[in-house]
Amino acid sequence: MIIVLAETANEADIRHVVDRIEESGRSAHLSRGVERTIIGVIGPDDPAMQDMFETLPGVESVHRVTKPYRLVSREFRPSGTVVECGHGVSIGGSELAVMAGPCSIEDERHIVETAIAVRAAGANILRGGAFKPRTSPYAFRGHGERALEFLANAGRESGMPVITEVMSVRDIDAVARSADIIQIGARNMQNFILLDEVGKTHKPVMLKRALSGTIEEWLLAAEYVVAQGNPNVILCERGIRTFETAYRNTFDINAIPLAKSLSHLPVIADPSHGTGKWKLVRPVAMASIAAGADGLMIEVHPNPDHALSDGAQSLTFESFERMMESVSAIAAAVERRVPLHASASAG
Amino acid sequence: MIIVLAETANEADIRHVVDRIEESGRSAHLSRGVERTIIGVIGPDDPAMQDMFETLPGVESVHRVTKPYRLVSREFRPSGTVVECGHGVSIGGSELAVMAGPCSIEDERHIVETAIAVRAAGANILRGGAFKPRTSPYAFRGHGERALEFLANAGRESGMPVITEVMSVRDIDAVARSADIIQIGARNMQNFILLDEVGKTHKPVMLKRALSGTIEEWLLAAEYVVAQGNPNVILCERGIRTFETAYRNTFDINAIPLAKSLSHLPVIADPSHGTGKWKLVRPVAMASIAAGADGLMIEVHPNPDHALSDGAQSLTFESFERMMESVSAIAAAVERRVPLHASASAG
Amino acid sequence: MIIVLAETANEADIRHVVDRIEESGRSAHLSRGVERTIIGVIGPDDPAMQDMFETLPGVESVHRVTKPYRLVSREFRPSGTVVECGHGVSIGGSELAVMAGPCSIEDERHIVETAIAVRAAGANILRGGAFKPRTSPYAFRGHGERALEFLANAGRESGMPVITEVMSVRDIDAVARSADIIQIGARNMQNFILLDEVGKTHKPVMLKRALSGTIEEWLLAAEYVVAQGNPNVILCERGIRTFETAYRNTFDINAIPLAKSLSHLPVIADPSHGTGKWKLVRPVAMASIAAGADGLMIEVHPNPDHALSDGAQSLTFESFERMMESVSAIAAAVERRVPLHASASAG
Amino acid sequence: MIIVLAETANEADIRHVVDRIEESGRSAHLSRGVERTIIGVIGPDDPAMQDMFETLPGVESVHRVTKPYRLVSREFRPSGTVVECGHGVSIGGSELAVMAGPCSIEDERHIVETAIAVRAAGANILRGGAFKPRTSPYAFRGHGERALEFLANAGRESGMPVITEVMSVRDIDAVARSADIIQIGARNMQNFILLDEVGKTHKPVMLKRALSGTIEEWLLAAEYVVAQGNPNVILCERGIRTFETAYRNTFDINAIPLAKSLSHLPVIADPSHGTGKWKLVRPVAMASIAAGADGLMIEVHPNPDHALSDGAQSLTFESFERMMESVSAIAAAVERRVPLHASASAG
Repeated sequence: MIIVLAETANEADIRHVVDRIEESGRSAHLSRGVERTIIGVIGPDDPAMQDMFETLPGVESVHRVTKPYRLVSREFRPSGTVVECGHGVSIGGSELAVMAGPCSIEDERHIVETAIAVRAAGANILRGGAFKPRTSPYAFRGHGERALEFLANAGRESGMPVITEVMSVRDIDAVARSADIIQIGARNMQNFILLDEVGKTHKPVMLKRALSGTIEEWLLAAEYVVAQGNPNVILCERGIRTFETAYRNTFDINAIPLAKSLSHLPVIADPSHGTGKWKLVRPVAMASIAAGADGLMIEVHPNPDHALSDGAQSLTFESFERMMESVSAIAAAVERRVPLHASASAG
Repeated sequence: MIIVLAETANEADIRHVVDRIEESGRSAHLSRGVERTIIGVIGPDDPAMQDMFETLPGVESVHRVTKPYRLVSREFRPSGTVVECGHGVSIGGSELAVMAGPCSIEDERHIVETAIAVRAAGANILRGGAFKPRTSPYAFRGHGERALEFLANAGRESGMPVITEVMSVRDIDAVARSADIIQIGARNMQNFILLDEVGKTHKPVMLKRALSGTIEEWLLAAEYVVAQGNPNVILCERGIRTFETAYRNTFDINAIPLAKSLSHLPVIADPSHGTGKWKLVRPVAMASIAAGADGLMIEVHPNPDHALSDGAQSLTFESFERMMESVSAIAAAVERRVPLHASASAG
Repeated sequence: MIIVLAETANEADIRHVVDRIEESGRSAHLSRGVERTIIGVIGPDDPAMQDMFETLPGVESVHRVTKPYRLVSREFRPSGTVVECGHGVSIGGSELAVMAGPCSIEDERHIVETAIAVRAAGANILRGGAFKPRTSPYAFRGHGERALEFLANAGRESGMPVITEVMSVRDIDAVARSADIIQIGARNMQNFILLDEVGKTHKPVMLKRALSGTIEEWLLAAEYVVAQGNPNVILCERGIRTFETAYRNTFDINAIPLAKSLSHLPVIADPSHGTGKWKLVRPVAMASIAAGADGLMIEVHPNPDHALSDGAQSLTFESFERMMESVSAIAAAVERRVPLHASASAG
Repeated sequence: MIIVLAETANEADIRHVVDRIEESGRSAHLSRGVERTIIGVIGPDDPAMQDMFETLPGVESVHRVTKPYRLVSREFRPSGTVVECGHGVSIGGSELAVMAGPCSIEDERHIVETAIAVRAAGANILRGGAFKPRTSPYAFRGHGERALEFLANAGRESGMPVITEVMSVRDIDAVARSADIIQIGARNMQNFILLDEVGKTHKPVMLKRALSGTIEEWLLAAEYVVAQGNPNVILCERGIRTFETAYRNTFDINAIPLAKSLSHLPVIADPSHGTGKWKLVRPVAMASIAAGADGLMIEVHPNPDHALSDGAQSLTFESFERMMESVSAIAAAVERRVPLHASASAG
C-alpha cells in the first residue's frame, strides 16, 4: 500500500500515519519529495486498512499495489487450470466446452429430447434450470427437486455431464447429488455464505459474473470458493448492466482475455444472457471463442415461443446447429475444436 | 400488454399471435393501422409472456402497460404504510427514523458506548453489523451470534430498537430473536429464497436497493416479502453503481420521491454507503430529508480510524451530532422532526 | 506520479524506467521493498506520461498523486468564486441564483409572458433556448438568432439577466451580444474548441456536466475556459446516464458537495434534466439546495402540453411558484435565501 | 405512438388526449379495455410529441412504435452500403478495411515510416491524428494543419487512403482537402452542427459512437449526416463507459451485429480505444471480425513508450503484424479476407 500525504500535512500527521502502520504489525518507508511525502507500507495489503488510512488527517490518497486475490491469480498457477467434469469432459483444454439446454426444465420428455438434439449438434454438457431466480414473485420459479431428477436422467441418456444452478445453501446437497457442475448465478455472485458452502463440496463450480460485478470482485468471489478447498472453479461472463437498453445485458468481451490473463481459471461465455436476443447469440458466441473463451453456455429450447422462461434469448435446435457450424470454423482459426462425438446417441 | 407487429407481418403471423394469446386464456384486441397492426392483450401482464411474444414471427415489439407489482404499489394503500418497530418507534410517520451505529459490532463496550452517544445526539434506532458481507474472503466478517447479543444489550441499555443484517436463511431465527428490524443488504436484494423466508417472519424488514437494481426490481423484491404475509417492509436507498469513481457509490436522490410515489412503503436514505466518504454524508443526509425520505441510516464509530470496516465513511460522535443539527433544520422546513428524547440515557 | 514495478521486474527494467523519467526532465526516487520496487517521479504529473509508463516492461501500475486541474481547484482560491451576471445578480453568494424559463423560445409573447411570471415567483435569471441540440435531425432545433432577440427583450422587460446555450463557435458572437451568461450544454462539455473560444470572451459561462462526464473531466473542461483567461465559470449538475430507466437521467446529488469541495466555482443544479419528470423537479430542487447548490435551473412553460420540446419535464407557472415556496423554506434552513424583488414587475 | 391511459383517467382526460392528437394533424384510434383505455396515434412518430403526451392528465405511458431514423435503416437499403474511399479501397465489402497508424502524427518521418510498416503488415487505410481532443488543456493537442500535410504525403507514399479526425467546423475544409475519410470522434457524436457540415461534403465520414451513446442515438447522429445529402457514412464502435475500471472503456461487441441488422451502414471496430490496453487489442480485434465487423481501426506506433499520446493502447509494428495474422485466420472463418497487396511498397 502507498499512502500519499496532502501538501498541507504536517509532521504530527505523518507521525500518526506511521504509528498506525506500525501498530498493525507492518513497517513504514518514508519518501519525502519536494511537494509532498509518500509512505510505503511494507506488509500485506488489506482493503479495510486502505479505508482506515483514508480517514487519517493529512492523508490525500491511498493506493493498493498488490492484487487482493491469491489462489485464483495466474501467478499462482501459470499453466492454467483444467476442470474435470465427468463423462470424459474437461473445461480449459483445447476442446471447447459447449453447455446447452433449456432455461427451465419443463418435463422429462422435454429435457431428454433437448439433450439428444444438442448433443447431436456438438454440445458436450447439458444445462437446465430446476431452481430459477425470478425478478417477480409471480413468475414460474422452476420445478425444483423433481426437475433435478429429470436432468440427471437426461444426462445419463445422452451421455453428458449436467450443470444446474443452486440458489440456496439448503439445496446444495440435492444439487450436488444430481449435477456434475454446480452453477452460481449472477445474482448470487456475492452471496458469500453460498460461496463458502459450495467451496466445501468437491464438485466443479461455475461462477457467473454479477450484473454489476467488477473483474476484481468476480475473482474475489472465486477466491471464496477456492479458499474453502475447492479448486474446481469455472468463470462465466454473462453480460453486465450498462445504460444501453437495446439488449438485455451488454456482453463484456474485454472480460474474457483479461480474466484469462489475471487468473488461471477457465472462462465460459454465455451469449444468451449476454445479449438477451436470440439473433445476437450466434455472432457473440463466435466472438467469444475468437477472444479466447474456453467454451459456451447457450439456451436452447425445442419451441422457444412456448418456453416458460427466457424464450426471447433461446435458440431452436436448428439455429443451435447453425451456430455450432459457425463456432466450429472460428475454433479452428484459434487452434481449438468443438466437441466431437463418435456417435450422437452413444452414452 | 400491447404487441406491435412489423410492417412486414402477414396474416398468418397475426393469426399466430392471436392464437398464442387465446391459448394463454387471455383475449386479443386487434387494431389495424395504415402502416401496421397493433394487438392489445386483455388479461394479466406476465413478464415471461412478454419474452415469449417477442420471439414470434412478425412481432416488432411488446410493451407492458401494467406494473408488475401489486401489494407494494401506492394504489394498493394510498395512505402510506407506517411500520412499528418497538420501543415506541415507528417508520413512515412525521417523526424521522434515525438509525445510527457502527458498521461492525466490535465488542460490547464499543456498541453500548456508541448507542448512548448516538441516542444523545438524536438517533432512535441502533444499527450494528454482526454478519458482514465482505468482498474479500480474507477481510473481517463480523463477530456473528456473539455480536447479536452485544447489540441486543446495547439496545436495551439505550432504550432503542435495533437493526442488523441477515445474510443467510440459517441465521434468520437468531437475528429475529435479537433484532427489532431485519436488514436485507444490497447484495442480497435478489436473494429470493432469503426474501421468501423473512417474509414468513413478522419482523419489520429493511430492504436495501442492489448496486445495480432498478426501481422496478427493488419494488418486486419488496413484493416477494409482502407476498409471504409480512407487510412491514421499509425500503432503503444506498447508492448505485455508475461510471463515476470519485465516490464509492452514486446516491440516487431521484429514487426517493419516485419510490414514494410508486409505493406506499417508507423509504430510508443511507448516505454513508451512498457516498463512501464521511465528508459527503452530512450534505447528502440533508438532501435526502429535503427530498422526502422517512429517515436515515448512518455509520457512526467512536474512532473511525480504528474501525474494523468502513472507516472512511463513518462519522465520529461529534460529526454525527453536527449532522443531526443540520438535519433537524431541514426536517423543520419540510414539516417533519428528528426524534426527541425526554432524556438521552432513559431506557 | 508513483510507478509500481511487478515482482518479476529486473534491474534492466528498473533502469529503463529511471532513464525515461530522467529523459523527461523529472527525477526518480527509488524505494526497494521486500517484494517489489516503487519509483516516485519528482516533477509535474502529466496524464500522457502515465499512459507511457504503463507500457514499459516490468511496470505493474502507475498512480497519479496530484490533481490534473489547477486554476479551478479550491486550493487556488479557497474563498470561493462569486460570478457577477449583470442586473445586480451574482452567483455563488448567499442569495441563490434561480434560472427559469422555457426549454425553447417559441415566440416573443411567449418568452416575455414567462419571464414576468417566473420573476414574480422569485426567479432572478431568465433562461430560454435559441439553438437546441436535438437527438433527431427531424426535431425542432430552435428559432436561432431571432429567438436571441426575443430573449434579450424579455430580459430587459423583466429586469433579469438572461442565459442561453451556444452550440458552435460561429454563434458565440451573436450569443455573447444578446446573453448575459453563455451556456455550454452537456453534449458539448468536451467540445474543446468551443471551450477555448468561450474562454476568450469575458462573459460568464455555465458549463453543464456531460451525460457520462466524471467530476474530474468536468473540472478539466472548466479549466479549459479559465486557462484562456475567463475566470467566470459556473458548474451545472444536470444528471448522469446510468442503467436506471425510470427517469431520463439520474441526478447526481453527491456531485454538488464534492464539486464545491474540489473547486472554488459555484455549482448550479438542474433538476429538470436531472430527472426528466416534472413531478420529481420540486423534491430534487429542494435536495440540491440542502446539499449546498448555489442555485437552480428550472424549465418552466406556460402550457407544457403544448411545448415544442421537453414538455414532460417543464413546470407550469403554478407548480414553479409552489416549488419556489418549498425551496425558500430549505434555503432558510441552510442560511441562504431565494431572490427577493422589491416589485415583481419592476425593470 | 401508443398512449396508455391510467386506470383513473376519465372521459375528459380521454377527450383532451384525442383533441391534442387531432390538433397535430394525426388521427386517434381508441381501444377501451376492461381496465384501461389505449389510444393509437395514426401518423408520424415524433419524440417531442411523446414528451408532450406524457404530460397530459390521465396519461400513464407513451410508447413509440416506429424507429426514429429512416435513411440509415436497414429497411431503406436492405443490401448494405459499400463506401468507396479512394486508392481502390472500399468499406463494407468482403475485404476488411484495416485502418492503422499512430494516435498523433508526430513528424513526417514518423508517419511515413509507420505507413510503410502497417501497409506491409496488411493495413489498407492510414490513420493519424492532427487535431486531438484531450481531456486536459495542458496535454499535447496535435500538430494541426502541418500534420495534415505529413499525413497526406504518407498516404501518397504508401499508396493508401488516409483518415483523420475533424473537431470543428472551421477545420472541415482543411481536413477534407488532405484526408480521404473524415472522422468524427466519440466526444463529437452529438455535435450536431459539425454533423450537419460534414453532411454537406461528399467525403466518407466515419462516425464514432459516444462514450455513453445508445445505438439509437448513434444511428440518429448518422441520420444527421445522411439527411444533408452525404450517404457515405461508416459507423465505428470504440467502447462505452461502464462501471468497470479494469479497462479504459468496455468494448460493446453486441453493438456490431445489432448495428448491422438495424442499419445498412458498414461498421468498424476500434479495439484500441475499446480496451485501452494493448494486450487486449488482438483478442478483441479477432472477436470483432468474428461478430461481423467490416474492419478495424488500430493504433500503431513505432515506439509506444515514446508516444505523445495513447501509448498504453498502441501496438508496435511487430505486435500489429502478429494481430494481422490472427485476424486473417478469423476472417477466413467468416468468409472474408484481410487486404492483400501485390507489393507492400507499391503506390
